[in-house]
Amino acid sequence: MISQMARWVFGQRMETSRLQEEKLSVFWGMPILSSDAISSVAYAVEEILLVLVPVLGAVSFIWMPRIAGIIIVLMAILITSYRQVVDTYPRGGGAYIVAKENLSPLAGLVAGASLCVDYTLTVAVSICAGVAAITSAVPGLHIYRVDISVIFILLLLIGNVRGIRESARIFSLPTYAFIIAIISLVVAGLVQRAHGIPLAASPFPASEPVSWTTHAVLIFLLLRAFASGCSAVTGIEAISNAVPNFKEPAGRNAKIVYVLLALSILICFGGVAYLAYLFKTVPDPRQTVIAQLSLLIFGQGAMFYFIQATTALILAMAANTAFAGFPTLLSIMAQDGYAPRQMALRGHRLNFNNGITILTILAIILVIVFEADTHLLIGLYAIGVFTSFTLSQTGMLIRWLRLKTPGWHYKAFINGLGAVTTFVAAAIIGVTKFTEGAWIVFVVVPLIVLVMLRIKRHYQSVAEQLDIPNEALSQIQLAPAYAHHVIVPIDSLNAMVVKALRYARTLTNNVAAFHVEPYEGEADKLVRKWTMLNTDIPLVVKQSPYREVIGPLKEYIDSEEHASQPGDVITVLLPQFFVAKWWQMSLHNNTSLFIANALF
Amino acid sequence: MISQMARWVFGQRMETSRLQEEKLSVFWGMPILSSDAISSVAYAVEEILLVLVPVLGAVSFIWMPRIAGIIIVLMAILITSYRQVVDTYPRGGGAYIVAKENLSPLAGLVAGASLCVDYTLTVAVSICAGVAAITSAVPGLHIYRVDISVIFILLLLIGNVRGIRESARIFSLPTYAFIIAIISLVVAGLVQRAHGIPLAASPFPASEPVSWTTHAVLIFLLLRAFASGCSAVTGIEAISNAVPNFKEPAGRNAKIVYVLLALSILICFGGVAYLAYLFKTVPDPRQTVIAQLSLLIFGQGAMFYFIQATTALILAMAANTAFAGFPTLLSIMAQDGYAPRQMALRGHRLNFNNGITILTILAIILVIVFEADTHLLIGLYAIGVFTSFTLSQTGMLIRWLRLKTPGWHYKAFINGLGAVTTFVAAAIIGVTKFTEGAWIVFVVVPLIVLVMLRIKRHYQSVAEQLDIPNEALSQIQLAPAYAHHVIVPIDSLNAMVVKALRYARTLTNNVAAFHVEPYEGEADKLVRKWTMLNTDIPLVVKQSPYREVIGPLKEYIDSEEHASQPGDVITVLLPQFFVAKWWQMSLHNNTSLFIANALF
Repeated sequence: MISQMARWVFGQRMETSRLQEEKLSVFWGMPILSSDAISSVAYAVEEILLVLVPVLGAVSFIWMPRIAGIIIVLMAILITSYRQVVDTYPRGGGAYIVAKENLSPLAGLVAGASLCVDYTLTVAVSICAGVAAITSAVPGLHIYRVDISVIFILLLLIGNVRGIRESARIFSLPTYAFIIAIISLVVAGLVQRAHGIPLAASPFPASEPVSWTTHAVLIFLLLRAFASGCSAVTGIEAISNAVPNFKEPAGRNAKIVYVLLALSILICFGGVAYLAYLFKTVPDPRQTVIAQLSLLIFGQGAMFYFIQATTALILAMAANTAFAGFPTLLSIMAQDGYAPRQMALRGHRLNFNNGITILTILAIILVIVFEADTHLLIGLYAIGVFTSFTLSQTGMLIRWLRLKTPGWHYKAFINGLGAVTTFVAAAIIGVTKFTEGAWIVFVVVPLIVLVMLRIKRHYQSVAEQLDIPNEALSQIQLAPAYAHHVIVPIDSLNAMVVKALRYARTLTNNVAAFHVEPYEGEADKLVRKWTMLNTDIPLVVKQSPYREVIGPLKEYIDSEEHASQPGDVITVLLPQFFVAKWWQMSLHNNTSLFIANALF
Repeated sequence: MISQMARWVFGQRMETSRLQEEKLSVFWGMPILSSDAISSVAYAVEEILLVLVPVLGAVSFIWMPRIAGIIIVLMAILITSYRQVVDTYPRGGGAYIVAKENLSPLAGLVAGASLCVDYTLTVAVSICAGVAAITSAVPGLHIYRVDISVIFILLLLIGNVRGIRESARIFSLPTYAFIIAIISLVVAGLVQRAHGIPLAASPFPASEPVSWTTHAVLIFLLLRAFASGCSAVTGIEAISNAVPNFKEPAGRNAKIVYVLLALSILICFGGVAYLAYLFKTVPDPRQTVIAQLSLLIFGQGAMFYFIQATTALILAMAANTAFAGFPTLLSIMAQDGYAPRQMALRGHRLNFNNGITILTILAIILVIVFEADTHLLIGLYAIGVFTSFTLSQTGMLIRWLRLKTPGWHYKAFINGLGAVTTFVAAAIIGVTKFTEGAWIVFVVVPLIVLVMLRIKRHYQSVAEQLDIPNEALSQIQLAPAYAHHVIVPIDSLNAMVVKALRYARTLTNNVAAFHVEPYEGEADKLVRKWTMLNTDIPLVVKQSPYREVIGPLKEYIDSEEHASQPGDVITVLLPQFFVAKWWQMSLHNNTSLFIANALF
């Protein structure tokens, strides 16, 4: 019944041959892979204001649009650069592969580890921001935000275990709905301002004492606001990583999606930033900036709730991007031996279920530890993504400089520009956000890299031990040239033991039964019964004053080993009976299991 | 290092032959086995007052001494009855054995289950009351009472795992110290009252409005006070249960201990009850009645702290009684097949460590759930003990009526009196305490009995399957008359697989390697390598569109089974390599383990 329920929740299993069918068209691929970047509209503007407003007050609205403009330019550079990555790596060009191939395996690992951290944060941040959209509409739910976030993550787990295409269908339409909702909001807001409808109330007192600060502090503040805003471009990697998931022509489709993504970010992020500038919205922990704008422009009506709902849904979809990206990245690294091999196994619906499960667990831990607070999580965010951006773009630059393929000057310029801008952004984020949580990433990423190196070393050493060169294959002798002793440890003489002895005799004529006697005379009954048995199998009885079985058995095996030829085989055959129900196992001493463990 | 530390904490292991040395003399047996009953002085008087004072006020002190008197008479009847049990059951006559042999196995189980519940409660109640003695002296520790209680229980665990005799030496002297302390308190208190030193302050206002109640309610109240006071006689069973733990003559020694116990209870319980009557002490959650009496009689000096310390220690010792009784009872029931067999195994220090561990866990859960509150736990207490008392005494009565041995009239009268009085007491406790927690016992005891019956049924069915009558032994054929196929599932051709194949060939000539191909062409490389191998072992390759291994393997085994003669043996030999460190296990698919599990 449990397995039937699991089938119903997670879907019927699929044949390996259906892997091909699960590919994405542009229409489905766009929402599933770019929702992360688009959805950041929901919090990126707010995060910029959260840095500026407490210090600069009304002056913030002079700086905010400029910072948003810089971020849009950064986004444009990145997308142009990444379109080149798609061209060059049609089989999936994540930062890990690009850095590994063009720089060094270690650079690839750093990029991969950074991305793993950021995929996890994407899930946590997006879900928390999505729940913030819900609690902005229904304030009574605010105290349940952690629980709601965890439930959303579990729903994503189910959706993703069900399979790529179906999860796209479940989640993709809200992305379009969100884009439409934001465009409506921007258009309505612009129309309203054009008609000169006055603001309901100015958020700042008329004669507010703006706390002017020194020049250096102002610059630091603006850089920090920029760093916070960089969370808007975090989803761009996903598309180039997932090129093989697209329908053919995969590269062209992926590049089209990149253009659509650039347009969407431009309209949505730019539009919301401009609205926030026009309406001078001040961040409020109880209501998001988008919710405030919707209220001001549409009032508390259907449109307000529609915008909150689509915001929540696209943020869930953004988390879903990570659910597509993280397991794929991990499976690629597992194929290279840097992650446990199981990460490269496809589940019953052809997905990488192990990676999906790990991502779920990590994201839930983050949500609980940070109490579903988007702003606290943002401190850790973006630094990992920009590290991997930098490594990937640097890798591409080196590639063009080395290969010098036709048109390499232009390509090197694009990726070089990308490398420089992302490096600068990464440095800004690392410095200005260090104390706000980025330091955790600086600790965790090297740790992950270390673990991955150890995993690789383990696989290498195992492979060295197991590998047989083809030339050596014909030399291998498989014919039996050894004598074979079988030792059967027994507790008493019963039907199970008789079966075991009978089996032992089909293996070899050289069988011995072995019994441990915890106190004088305990074995007398067994010895008596043994003599009634019509067999030549000897019964060996050893004393064990301390009531343990394994020591005397080991001694006996050692003595047998001394008596045998080198290369002879000794098998310890442990009689074990199996019970019908699991709890009945606990009713038996299970000495066999202990012996088996000890002998291993 | 961990095992060395464990040796240091839990003691060096002991030889089975030293079992004889671990026996108790009267001097050590008295404190270790009767401290439960003696220590109840620390709370029994208080529990009586806790029922009476809130309703009756000053009038309580008219009734309390009478109830205490009845309980002392009950104790005398019980001890006389139990001395007859010791005579009749020199090998340990717990209620379980007496009820099982003379009434029915089910009656024995009910008695055993009741005792198990009460042993657990003894640990919890005694430890909580002991910690109350400590917090009466050092009120600052009150908020840590749960933590302190848990630590005490863990210390008892260590003491008991170290072994019977040593635990007696560690814990037994405080029992004597407590008896001396209480006698000093009683003597000093009586001398003080004889000299007519006035009470510091009357606990009741001069013109207190005593809330008189109806006659029926008064009777119910007195019965309930009696039920609470019955906790004073809960330890009596322990001695008759543990007769075989005494030095020879065991029976005589046990009976001497019973007399010493009766005297101790008479002096201590009677004395404290009389002092509480003289000084009119009112129960106070922050300070026990004994602490109040010590303060009034000795002031806050050395004697006050001595009395609190010995009280805490004897209560720890009382908990220790259960640590001796519970595992012994469980081991007896395990030998009869009513409890898991492991309960009858002696540990490295010859104790029943499994029972000790279970008791520790249950007691800690009780302490945490009831927040170390003695009064809340008392509601569950005593009903189990009196159920087992009644069953045991009824069993003895039936025995005399049936056997009619010399002097059976007198013996039947004693045990009959015991049966009637304990039955009346059990009924009173069950009715008056039902809503206060006794109902939990009425639920738990039948549950335990049910579980024990299922365990017994399982062991019986296993025994039926395994047993071979002696006559059949000589008919058993152990010589090999069967063909033997070995199937070796392999993933690739490596050194591990070669070892497995070589081993398979020492077993039989009939070996086949088996490989599952998750998608078309996956096995091509393996097949190519296989042809280079100089062997006649066939490689069987099966398709598996759903990427699972176990299904195709099962089908193959079934087809082999159809092709073979009845009685032929098929062995599935699973190559498995072992890693140096446990975490490395998680880096491998461990398909062998899954296959092994599925085939079982």
